[in-house]
Amino acid sequence: MQQRIVVLAGGIGGARFLRGLKSAVPDADITVIGNTGDDIHLFGLKVCPDLDTVMYTLGGGIHEEQGWGRAGESFAVKEELAAYGVGPEWFGLGDRDFATHIVRTQMLGAGYPLSAVTEALCRRWQPGVRLLPMSDDRVETHVLIDDPDGEGRKAVHFQEYWVRLHAATPAHAIVPVGAEEAKPAPGVLEAIAAADVILFPPSNPVVSVGTILAVPGVREAVASAAAPVVGLSPIVGNAPVRGMADKVLEAVGVESTAAAVARHYGSGLIDGWLVDTVDADAVAEVESAGIRCRSVPLMMTDVEATARMAAQALALAEEVRA
Amino acid sequence: MQQRIVVLAGGIGGARFLRGLKSAVPDADITVIGNTGDDIHLFGLKVCPDLDTVMYTLGGGIHEEQGWGRAGESFAVKEELAAYGVGPEWFGLGDRDFATHIVRTQMLGAGYPLSAVTEALCRRWQPGVRLLPMSDDRVETHVLIDDPDGEGRKAVHFQEYWVRLHAATPAHAIVPVGAEEAKPAPGVLEAIAAADVILFPPSNPVVSVGTILAVPGVREAVASAAAPVVGLSPIVGNAPVRGMADKVLEAVGVESTAAAVARHYGSGLIDGWLVDTVDADAVAEVESAGIRCRSVPLMMTDVEATARMAAQALALAEEVRA
Repeated sequence: MQQRIVVLAGGIGGARFLRGLKSAVPDADITVIGNTGDDIHLFGLKVCPDLDTVMYTLGGGIHEEQGWGRAGESFAVKEELAAYGVGPEWFGLGDRDFATHIVRTQMLGAGYPLSAVTEALCRRWQPGVRLLPMSDDRVETHVLIDDPDGEGRKAVHFQEYWVRLHAATPAHAIVPVGAEEAKPAPGVLEAIAAADVILFPPSNPVVSVGTILAVPGVREAVASAAAPVVGLSPIVGNAPVRGMADKVLEAVGVESTAAAVARHYGSGLIDGWLVDTVDADAVAEVESAGIRCRSVPLMMTDVEATARMAAQALALAEEVRA
Repeated sequence: MQQRIVVLAGGIGGARFLRGLKSAVPDADITVIGNTGDDIHLFGLKVCPDLDTVMYTLGGGIHEEQGWGRAGESFAVKEELAAYGVGPEWFGLGDRDFATHIVRTQMLGAGYPLSAVTEALCRRWQPGVRLLPMSDDRVETHVLIDDPDGEGRKAVHFQEYWVRLHAATPAHAIVPVGAEEAKPAPGVLEAIAAADVILFPPSNPVVSVGTILAVPGVREAVASAAAPVVGLSPIVGNAPVRGMADKVLEAVGVESTAAAVARHYGSGLIDGWLVDTVDADAVAEVESAGIRCRSVPLMMTDVEATARMAAQALALAEEVRA
């Protein structure tokens, strides 16, 4: 019987991990629960950066070097919007990417839920996994920062914090607006309950995996799942492998270390944790928190290296299960 | 004092005429009442082909040879939409053009009326005229044709009839759906009442000028205006100069001759009518219908020739006034 693997994924890190996972276990039945907390409405269009990054990466349409957006992209629409004085200019949507958002927005406007829209978009991309948004309801991650124009604080959309401000100003809080009222998308809880293995890729533990877990019912489903739950540290040598996870970890009071992130998830949620070989010292600390831990190379330098990481995560899951 | 000229315009013919008019009387205060009956929703976006053709033509962004759409256009978005299986494919929207529709749709979604949106778009294009949609209300010209899939008849959107079917099937009726309930856009009736001259360019008398006149109040305002009303025949030598006006004239029982179109408008509406020199024979017939008529070259081969046509129309208006 096919191994059923559920992966809670953010954007670039999650997508690259999934490509390695597919390579490691090509016959597995993989369900991806994608973060939609960084979705944003731009130019009246619904943009789902993480879902699209997973879809484009696994479907062969991704801009490889950049890690997001489409390969062979052009920017005529964006240039024209700027000529109309319509922004924001800091979010780089290409022409090919625009088409995805146009189709999505049209379908949402026609009444289809995001999960059905995502399924329709995936009929073209054939990502080889079942890609589910964490929720059909709107959840938007906001970041509380010092108001650059005043004395108080203000909340900005995660994309503004991340893309426009480059996370260069301290984040005082991360708020997944709407999460409390959101329901898991159809199939999410069922996939978790039926999983043989649940994996947390080296995605951002706060604004990617953390947001998915903030949808009521998801954390509980993962915690109570029969399947072993194994995560891979996005922190290597006390710094994020990519992105700015340290900035948002600080906002939730978590140190930027492989061990601290494992403790942040906690033994109530995860059963196993992989740290990089440079963090071998952390193994004992993680295990003392009740989480089985191994140190292995965690740099996703290419698909082969990533496949080995995925295989190690699956091996650790079997070890936990046994 | 500036001469106040009001022009009821369709797409390509109207836009090219307006370029000649601006050249002929660069200091005039020109208000264009644009046809919105061929507006269409495509991919969830509001497309206003006639308003855009006027805006792009007068603003220097038009694809000159084609007469519609943007110069230097690319088609990445359209190719991607086709890859998603999302149509229609018969309507050729380019990437630059898409940006206009994205801005328009976003503003409409935010609650701005089409007249305000058009004004905002024109702030970029600076067409040198005041461009007003005929109405802020949705009017959609439908064409009744034989059902290709059955025995009865069916109504199709004008764009489907015109662009997809190339007007190759008989039009039994032209119905400006929604026109009866539409109100003229702010400024339309005021501009007509305050005009020194009102011109009907060689636009389609049925689906362009006719649709504008179908908005309740507009025909009456033109008929009762103090200003002389002069039209230019879109029919030269018993055939449309461009487009397929003969097809839709047939649907309303009007012969495709310069004289028949003049009589279709009627002396209650127009005071003067220009026919081409090849239709000099029609002058007597038009004048016998109570409409002052002159024959002059009516081929808009370039801006200079078009400017001469516009000057002739203004001269005829003065003759009528005196």
